[in-house]
Amino acid sequence: MHDDRLFSPVSFSTLIARRGRGETYPVQMVEESLSRFNAVDETVCAFQFVDPDAVRAELLQRRAGPLEGIAIGIKDIFDTHDMPTEYGSAIYAGHRPKADSALVALCRRAGATILGKTVTTEFAFLTPARTRNPHDLERTPGGSSSGSAAAVACGMVPIAFGTQTGGSTIRPAAYCGVAGYKPSYRMLPVTGMKAFSTTLDTVGVFAAHVGDAASFMEKLTNRDLTHDGFKRKTVTVGYYRSAIDNQASQAMHKAVETAANALRRSGNEVIDLEEPGELSLAREAHTTIQNFEANQALAFEADNHRDLLSATLRETLEAGRAILPVDYDEARRIAKRGRDALRSVFQSCDVLLLPSAAGAAPSGLASTGDPLFNKLWTLMGTPAVNIPGLSDEHGLPLGVQMVGRFGNDRLTLNVATDLERLL
Amino acid sequence: MHDDRLFSPVSFSTLIARRGRGETYPVQMVEESLSRFNAVDETVCAFQFVDPDAVRAELLQRRAGPLEGIAIGIKDIFDTHDMPTEYGSAIYAGHRPKADSALVALCRRAGATILGKTVTTEFAFLTPARTRNPHDLERTPGGSSSGSAAAVACGMVPIAFGTQTGGSTIRPAAYCGVAGYKPSYRMLPVTGMKAFSTTLDTVGVFAAHVGDAASFMEKLTNRDLTHDGFKRKTVTVGYYRSAIDNQASQAMHKAVETAANALRRSGNEVIDLEEPGELSLAREAHTTIQNFEANQALAFEADNHRDLLSATLRETLEAGRAILPVDYDEARRIAKRGRDALRSVFQSCDVLLLPSAAGAAPSGLASTGDPLFNKLWTLMGTPAVNIPGLSDEHGLPLGVQMVGRFGNDRLTLNVATDLERLL
Repeated sequence: MHDDRLFSPVSFSTLIARRGRGETYPVQMVEESLSRFNAVDETVCAFQFVDPDAVRAELLQRRAGPLEGIAIGIKDIFDTHDMPTEYGSAIYAGHRPKADSALVALCRRAGATILGKTVTTEFAFLTPARTRNPHDLERTPGGSSSGSAAAVACGMVPIAFGTQTGGSTIRPAAYCGVAGYKPSYRMLPVTGMKAFSTTLDTVGVFAAHVGDAASFMEKLTNRDLTHDGFKRKTVTVGYYRSAIDNQASQAMHKAVETAANALRRSGNEVIDLEEPGELSLAREAHTTIQNFEANQALAFEADNHRDLLSATLRETLEAGRAILPVDYDEARRIAKRGRDALRSVFQSCDVLLLPSAAGAAPSGLASTGDPLFNKLWTLMGTPAVNIPGLSDEHGLPLGVQMVGRFGNDRLTLNVATDLERLL
Repeated sequence: MHDDRLFSPVSFSTLIARRGRGETYPVQMVEESLSRFNAVDETVCAFQFVDPDAVRAELLQRRAGPLEGIAIGIKDIFDTHDMPTEYGSAIYAGHRPKADSALVALCRRAGATILGKTVTTEFAFLTPARTRNPHDLERTPGGSSSGSAAAVACGMVPIAFGTQTGGSTIRPAAYCGVAGYKPSYRMLPVTGMKAFSTTLDTVGVFAAHVGDAASFMEKLTNRDLTHDGFKRKTVTVGYYRSAIDNQASQAMHKAVETAANALRRSGNEVIDLEEPGELSLAREAHTTIQNFEANQALAFEADNHRDLLSATLRETLEAGRAILPVDYDEARRIAKRGRDALRSVFQSCDVLLLPSAAGAAPSGLASTGDPLFNKLWTLMGTPAVNIPGLSDEHGLPLGVQMVGRFGNDRLTLNVATDLERLL
């Protein structure tokens, strides 16, 4: 099932190191992305739009910067002034925004090249698009950042951006066998991104390995995300157990156990943690918050282009419309109590370890899988990382998830980087 | 100075009551707005765009709803699919978005008519536009929601929307002598609004009186904002004193004192409150958060249309770019500590009373005045209301501000409504 011709992610850090040693240079780096795109995208369908000539023209006028030569895939819910931006919906066929989203502008400011727009599910919600999983073309790549995960998995780009409102970064990263990193809420700007749920929408990044994601984000944001201040110390890892664990596959349980053992063997303490009741309640509150806000965010589309919405989305927006403000407010209070409870959890450990998804990518393209193991962490706003490297009995990737304290992205990324090396 | 021909706000509640009694009907209500616009806007310059024929055409196809016949002015930083949306910047001259902002879609869903787009300062920041204060044409109406405040003050519309990132709702409401209401953070959606600072940008509403704002918002959001559950009880009002008070005029000090006395006389307790140090620090952290985020939100414009930005905005964006992420993170932590301190403040009182601005609208149109008395409350996310009714020795409006606990909009609006009646 594992098709080596398709799955071959390219490491950002390796590219940067080669560029530093003069073994490659920006134009060549981007040309390699274009030729990989030409070779495999007809099969995988990761990109919604790529114009190679425009990419080359822009490359000639590029800004100097730390990301020169880095080709980036941008989920097609981020506005680009020079490429169509269709939000995965026929309503926006051929839509060309007036301005770049903040994220795209900041990437370009740092010297990066936008290779193209990656396929998103309809408005980054559940209705699948045409992207396939590079490990098995008859399986979903996950969603909603389907194209971004697949594009990185196939080495078409070293970096791609997605978003997460339920589980749209961590889940496709896990299914496609690459690193996914959802930073602390609002570390990356959502301005110029098509909103679904303002409280939840979070920009996430895909890369070959966790260290690549950290190193890229460090260069983009000028934050210290890789310096290993705790190098010689070990950490306490909370093995996070909750009532939803019975929905995870046997193979996934084994994968998390393997990860826990690897962390133990390298000197870290791994403690068992039962999910506090406040956090179980917060997970349930996620849907209320999401649907209430989606009904507002997509009110124009619902009222003016109803026939062009999928049935799933129409029903979700109607469900959102039926939620009373008092119930929405109560859901937000439940989330707040969840965040307070989580602070206590992080007094007994530094990071949490748990599944990234219920198992490997499910068969078929009719569903993008379930965000059950992700949505609580989206609502909590905490950094979350999918760590690739493990697989099930069929060779399909299994991702384990590390979650850290809000604002503690560096530690989370560092421990996750260590764990990936150990696996 | 007080020009009665210009200043004549129209009460939303009165309109709704007249409609209910059959004394007016939706088409006539909107026609009255159009004819008032025709009579005075050439002088006041509150609107950026109005197309009377399009308004009439839309009115014929309007949805049934509680806001039928209500003509609304929308600050020109909210996208409208059928009207230009220029964000107060030459960069966007003639720009026509593909979709309505969530706010506009929700107003239309409730049956309201969008009369047109009101003048905003450049990207809702400080650089003034051409709107004049209806009380004195040589004075600023305040900003950045200049047109919305002036349009309501002149009775061109019963309701207008603005936003507040520093003091852009409460201050122009105070200068123009109308009610301004900044709801709890994110009660109204910002989707489809041009962002400046995601942490701060808050939708606000203008109306003739506080009760009008409350009643309108109740109909728009289905929240209970007017039911007076505490009718026969009195409240404890914190007379909020801080180090910036020495920047308020004598007349303003007198106005707040007058308001405090009125509240006392009607049986409420008014206690003195010294600003906790955490809140003084939070006020100072506002600029760091705002400028850091503005540099991201407007990165495309800064990098591609620099020459079309005002010098003030260019300098602000450059200042934002120079802020280190660690300093931004620290500013957010200071804000968090401010919110914690504010929770303690609200254990000793129900609402706070303080100036809406340093004084009456300053002379000249070169500045929109200072958001000093507002920016802390924007950062805290608390409901804030400008209460009109008082004036200085020249007859210029002086606004007093009531601030409530996050989520406690109903109580804040109710006490503010009572106070307006008392003044």
